[in-house]
Amino acid sequence: MKAFQEYYTEEFSYCYGCGTKNIYGHQLKTYWEGEETVSHFTPKPEHTALPGFVYGGLIASLIDCHSTATGSAAIYKANNSKEKFYPRCVTASLKVDFIKPTPIDCTLELRGKVKEIKGRKVIVEVNLFAKNKICAKGYVVVVQVPDSWLAK
Amino acid sequence: MKAFQEYYTEEFSYCYGCGTKNIYGHQLKTYWEGEETVSHFTPKPEHTALPGFVYGGLIASLIDCHSTATGSAAIYKANNSKEKFYPRCVTASLKVDFIKPTPIDCTLELRGKVKEIKGRKVIVEVNLFAKNKICAKGYVVVVQVPDSWLAK
Repeated sequence: MKAFQEYYTEEFSYCYGCGTKNIYGHQLKTYWEGEETVSHFTPKPEHTALPGFVYGGLIASLIDCHSTATGSAAIYKANNSKEKFYPRCVTASLKVDFIKPTPIDCTLELRGKVKEIKGRKVIVEVNLFAKNKICAKGYVVVVQVPDSWLAK
Repeated sequence: MKAFQEYYTEEFSYCYGCGTKNIYGHQLKTYWEGEETVSHFTPKPEHTALPGFVYGGLIASLIDCHSTATGSAAIYKANNSKEKFYPRCVTASLKVDFIKPTPIDCTLELRGKVKEIKGRKVIVEVNLFAKNKICAKGYVVVVQVPDSWLAK
């Protein structure tokens, strides 16, 4: 099964967070699991905040990229698209609540739900779990990249 | 002039976003400029989103670390502290509005304002500029690390 990010055009495959062709980046991979979207990510030791915990910027990044991927797949699905590639979304607004410190010595799980699709806009709710406990919640508004950008 | 991050204890100097001792991280440095706080950061080529633009996760990370640093310095100042080290803040809630795509080929400027200090909690507003244009706005609630964490 291919991840959502493997359905981006090459131009859109260099994102630090999720691009399959960014060798320095996180290469986040996202999949459907029923109506939810799921990603997993194992932090590196240097992704520390206070000793033993993941720094907030990584958590925000993962929630951001999980949400743009969820938006892309949700638009593709909603349109019953038969295109070879998914549309690419970018983030308009990102809200992250840090519920408890996220331990760094485990694989993190992100689970997303599509709350609304309206044309090119998708609202995604994301829960981030570590060791089966919820550590952060995201509420993210993503939009499909305007065609005008693509000419650049 | 030393940056706020140079006033953290060693234990708190390993954050990927701003720790002076994290050789893999961003090592963000923040200073007072009048009543505002200022950081500068030059993205690396791999910090791309769509070609030519900075990925949202880096923007969120910079706003996050700029805000925790601002909170630390603001609490230190508000307490008229004479301690050798600043208190360390962590993020409770992070909101980022992406106003326009952030170009990657320049140094970014973050400017923060303390909107409220209430005991251990500080609310910070941050504007992120590229080429003198505002590209993102952050609204961040940070809290001083509870003493109970420090025993760990």
